[in-house]
Amino acid sequence: MIIVLRAGATDQDVRQIEETIKGKGLTAHISRGVERTIIGAIGDERNLDPDAFEGLPVVEKVLRILAPFKLVSREFQKEGTVITVNGKRVGGKALALFAGPCSVEGRDMMTQIGERVASAGATFLRGGAFKPRTSPYAFQGLGEEGLKYLAEARDRTGLPVATELMDPRDLDLVARYADVIQIGARNMQNFRLLTEVGKLDKPVILKRGMSATIQEWLMSAEYIASEGNQKIILCERGIRTYETATRNTFDVSSIPVVKSLSHLPVIADPSHAAGKMALVEPLAAAAIAAGADGLMVEVHHQPEKALSDGPQSLRPDAFTQMIGRLRKVAEAVGRTI
Amino acid sequence: MIIVLRAGATDQDVRQIEETIKGKGLTAHISRGVERTIIGAIGDERNLDPDAFEGLPVVEKVLRILAPFKLVSREFQKEGTVITVNGKRVGGKALALFAGPCSVEGRDMMTQIGERVASAGATFLRGGAFKPRTSPYAFQGLGEEGLKYLAEARDRTGLPVATELMDPRDLDLVARYADVIQIGARNMQNFRLLTEVGKLDKPVILKRGMSATIQEWLMSAEYIASEGNQKIILCERGIRTYETATRNTFDVSSIPVVKSLSHLPVIADPSHAAGKMALVEPLAAAAIAAGADGLMVEVHHQPEKALSDGPQSLRPDAFTQMIGRLRKVAEAVGRTI
Amino acid sequence: MIIVLRAGATDQDVRQIEETIKGKGLTAHISRGVERTIIGAIGDERNLDPDAFEGLPVVEKVLRILAPFKLVSREFQKEGTVITVNGKRVGGKALALFAGPCSVEGRDMMTQIGERVASAGATFLRGGAFKPRTSPYAFQGLGEEGLKYLAEARDRTGLPVATELMDPRDLDLVARYADVIQIGARNMQNFRLLTEVGKLDKPVILKRGMSATIQEWLMSAEYIASEGNQKIILCERGIRTYETATRNTFDVSSIPVVKSLSHLPVIADPSHAAGKMALVEPLAAAAIAAGADGLMVEVHHQPEKALSDGPQSLRPDAFTQMIGRLRKVAEAVGRTI
Amino acid sequence: MIIVLRAGATDQDVRQIEETIKGKGLTAHISRGVERTIIGAIGDERNLDPDAFEGLPVVEKVLRILAPFKLVSREFQKEGTVITVNGKRVGGKALALFAGPCSVEGRDMMTQIGERVASAGATFLRGGAFKPRTSPYAFQGLGEEGLKYLAEARDRTGLPVATELMDPRDLDLVARYADVIQIGARNMQNFRLLTEVGKLDKPVILKRGMSATIQEWLMSAEYIASEGNQKIILCERGIRTYETATRNTFDVSSIPVVKSLSHLPVIADPSHAAGKMALVEPLAAAAIAAGADGLMVEVHHQPEKALSDGPQSLRPDAFTQMIGRLRKVAEAVGRTI
Repeated sequence: MIIVLRAGATDQDVRQIEETIKGKGLTAHISRGVERTIIGAIGDERNLDPDAFEGLPVVEKVLRILAPFKLVSREFQKEGTVITVNGKRVGGKALALFAGPCSVEGRDMMTQIGERVASAGATFLRGGAFKPRTSPYAFQGLGEEGLKYLAEARDRTGLPVATELMDPRDLDLVARYADVIQIGARNMQNFRLLTEVGKLDKPVILKRGMSATIQEWLMSAEYIASEGNQKIILCERGIRTYETATRNTFDVSSIPVVKSLSHLPVIADPSHAAGKMALVEPLAAAAIAAGADGLMVEVHHQPEKALSDGPQSLRPDAFTQMIGRLRKVAEAVGRTI
Repeated sequence: MIIVLRAGATDQDVRQIEETIKGKGLTAHISRGVERTIIGAIGDERNLDPDAFEGLPVVEKVLRILAPFKLVSREFQKEGTVITVNGKRVGGKALALFAGPCSVEGRDMMTQIGERVASAGATFLRGGAFKPRTSPYAFQGLGEEGLKYLAEARDRTGLPVATELMDPRDLDLVARYADVIQIGARNMQNFRLLTEVGKLDKPVILKRGMSATIQEWLMSAEYIASEGNQKIILCERGIRTYETATRNTFDVSSIPVVKSLSHLPVIADPSHAAGKMALVEPLAAAAIAAGADGLMVEVHHQPEKALSDGPQSLRPDAFTQMIGRLRKVAEAVGRTI
Repeated sequence: MIIVLRAGATDQDVRQIEETIKGKGLTAHISRGVERTIIGAIGDERNLDPDAFEGLPVVEKVLRILAPFKLVSREFQKEGTVITVNGKRVGGKALALFAGPCSVEGRDMMTQIGERVASAGATFLRGGAFKPRTSPYAFQGLGEEGLKYLAEARDRTGLPVATELMDPRDLDLVARYADVIQIGARNMQNFRLLTEVGKLDKPVILKRGMSATIQEWLMSAEYIASEGNQKIILCERGIRTYETATRNTFDVSSIPVVKSLSHLPVIADPSHAAGKMALVEPLAAAAIAAGADGLMVEVHHQPEKALSDGPQSLRPDAFTQMIGRLRKVAEAVGRTI
Repeated sequence: MIIVLRAGATDQDVRQIEETIKGKGLTAHISRGVERTIIGAIGDERNLDPDAFEGLPVVEKVLRILAPFKLVSREFQKEGTVITVNGKRVGGKALALFAGPCSVEGRDMMTQIGERVASAGATFLRGGAFKPRTSPYAFQGLGEEGLKYLAEARDRTGLPVATELMDPRDLDLVARYADVIQIGARNMQNFRLLTEVGKLDKPVILKRGMSATIQEWLMSAEYIASEGNQKIILCERGIRTYETATRNTFDVSSIPVVKSLSHLPVIADPSHAAGKMALVEPLAAAAIAAGADGLMVEVHHQPEKALSDGPQSLRPDAFTQMIGRLRKVAEAVGRTI
């Protein structure tokens, strides 16, 4: 870590920072220039909090040398992680396709949609039983009943199922039914929840928080990994910006950036990013072209009647046709669907 | 709710939207103009999700007429809410002053700091026992031990204590010690946690999420209120923007905006907004001048040794002097400290 | 335009807004509901400024029904615009490829790079003679000398040339040499400059401003079109967000959104969006997959010695190889390079 | 400047960066650590462009040690700049009050408003003759006629006048009438315009760009100062964020931050920041409390009929009353109105 002091920093200021650095087990290297004094902290930087210096009146700037995450970094593991669930893979040449309704709304709809997306090429079935809703008055999901329908659809289609976990108290329940556990954008920094799924032996989809930096996203992955669970699938779903023409701004750059920093697979959720049916395909194609390892797409047999997120859901027919076109894009960049 | 259709919308498109509106118990009023067809949904708009229309290819725009929150709105209750805890008030003419360290680090430091801030004019003592930290490797708080020290400091100082709750599983534990429960910025949309504190008969500080709109913030307050707990204190603590000169951008406008929309008291946390000691006082003064009902300020006897957020903490002396100056600002806008 | 009044709006409030609407030549339609009064302004909404109502204490919300732009809208002209310059096209099935150095640095480098990009498949040559630089102490471009080298490179390669105009006083000079005039991101709302290029009979590349909404971008295009020049090429180059891992956030969604709202061609500039060499190809591929009509890519024979923007520039070899791979992506979405 | 290389950087990579540094007249200091090689560039850092390194594949991070601006920095000049125009001051203990209509709409209104604001305590009269409007179809200002009315109002009231300059071709015209020249937010990075006003001997108000960082804002001030004109008044007017409850987010923190970095006076424009009449006073009070050197407030005798920005304008009565209240806030922080 490099700490640049303001002009006029006194010897005592320098000594105090030096002591803090030593107190954390690192060595301080002082370099007094004509205009500024610069302190280098040498040793395991992960023990130092840049905030512990940045707010001090005498400190002008702090530069971290090493990334604050380790286990999930590309330096820690060179080759990309491939996660296998009941024979389906995330990572590697073939793209993973998570498809299904936003919410599980009933037994029949889950099975019907499941069969349709399976035959279109989906490799995982998704559906929410616990739904994070902005309004306390909105449909909150079917809970355990929904999980059961999801599991039944898995049995019928052979597709492993992914569903969201919102509360550590539901962990056992959700883990009993789900093959893949999803942590939603709003819970990306629910550190207690991350710690809990870190103790499981089950893949976790970690959605990027609505205003999370790429570094914070990887730090949340590190929370999971630090508990022992390395089966983490990152999912880009758009970030909050000033632009209102789309619900969120799909940050397609995050895909190549994350893949250079981390060995974890990254998938994209064009449905939530855009919030509009018509944008799902162009964003899905863009994600694949940029190197995504898969997609998560909302599919509903009657989008206009969906209990949540209807208008960003594709009908099964539209999904099937889209996959046909996306296959060509995937092949153009050396991947398969 | 007003739904504007794209040019070229067919009769069938109109009928379909009409049916959805009726299905939710509202009436649809169709107005066909030269250039656009506009549908008004008349009735209790809170049953309608704008997203349920916005993503449809045929829909151009949706305008909500009524705010999606009700119980926390100024229309629902004209006069401002005043919350009283052990004789200390939040709301009303006198400003509420929450002060104390970021983390509870030990028994002595809590009591010492507590006594210092009490004599400087603080009305509540704050301190974290469970800390949300970006890194899994950082100090996570003392847990129950910290809560005990906090309670002891209350007994010594007479100040009610406020502390953060991160996990619904800790609810009973935290509620046993704390007089006021804080929901942190990262948990503003942890809806399960909101639901749980909504069942308590204890004041809740609801910090604004890092990228939450004012409307989302009030919807999260509505979650708490809808469970029966109306003792909600909103806390502005800065939002995430492109500017990097400050840790967050303190959105001082949110104070008068929230006070016009809601009857709930609003306090400001200049320490987290700025991330820098030198900015705490100007932001605190700005918040008071803009109409805040109180402040939450981090105070530490040795900021350079604090286990978290040291550099944005004030020393007790500096805090005392600042309060002296802020008292004048408060009086200038008809308030007292 | 629909104007929603706050609860408690008086008859006089309503009358006053009605008069303003009538004063602009529109008709007001008043609808008094149980909870809110809503005023519809019927007629040519482009005469009304939503801001003229939005800030009034009695107004809660304003919804524009029609887009504020007309000439550049897809409703005004259904088929996409195709612009032809010396036989090269922008719009249509074949992608337009603008390539060349950020700044024109000399005669030889322009000709060399020009020949290399021409043989790799570029259809336009780019190079800046007037450079907008954040620092007054940085290289500001060669001025007219640079324009001459650019023109010479056009003569050698047969590629039409594009260059930036920053100042209305340089208009004649720049127009004398350039085949396509570029308006940079920082000048997207330099309305006097837009008005001037609107009077030319020459294609204009209009880069999106760093924090411009899609609507503002199209309004700036409308400025040009309203003066008579319809040959406008929109260029997405990334927007400013909180994310610091990339220089800007490349808003890939803007491509399909703009193409649905406007008949103008849209190209993408992955070099400026990313600010990093390694991200140019994934972003270029994403843009093509999302429907862009072309690319603008910085190419330099010695990026490490470039006088500006070196590190985001590709070497000619790398450019040639990238184009080979992008050709496949273009074909996958029914386009050609 | 400190340049951190990625793991795996080769000797050749290091040499190449070393050469670039030497080529700019600085010295390179190489430090090879266990995990990273770090290069320090020692000498006048203003000759180095961080972008020249940041995009290189081998570079991980770049840290500038010194601010890129010099003449406007607090280090260059310790004491705050005070600008005097016809006996009125900006900077120093007394606050500067710029008041008047958004646009000059006629002779009588200018004089009337001028007299009202003068008697309320304004020290400068503002009014736009050239208006930057998002739509080409909106009122663009009265041009020279407006400047004349403004000058007449100055003669009647004795208040120096401030007005916006949008185009270098209008410089002589505007300078003939105006005492203070305003550069609007949209032109903050119109570098040619900055260079031109830098050659004048007249104060310049430099508004912060809608998405400008504080550093970019100060760099634009440096453009003006580097041409010889040091009479620069910075004006915070809100930045663009995701929040839509206000037109812009008033960045009150920028006031103390700029005052610590620069010796230039900083005023605040609460009218544009908020876009709403009801927010003008709380934001004005917040700005004063945070240390602003003055305000710019829109005042109109008939806001509902204003040709631009009516709803954020105060009536003269309201302005007078507000100033009375703000005087107390100013005194509370040791300033006067």
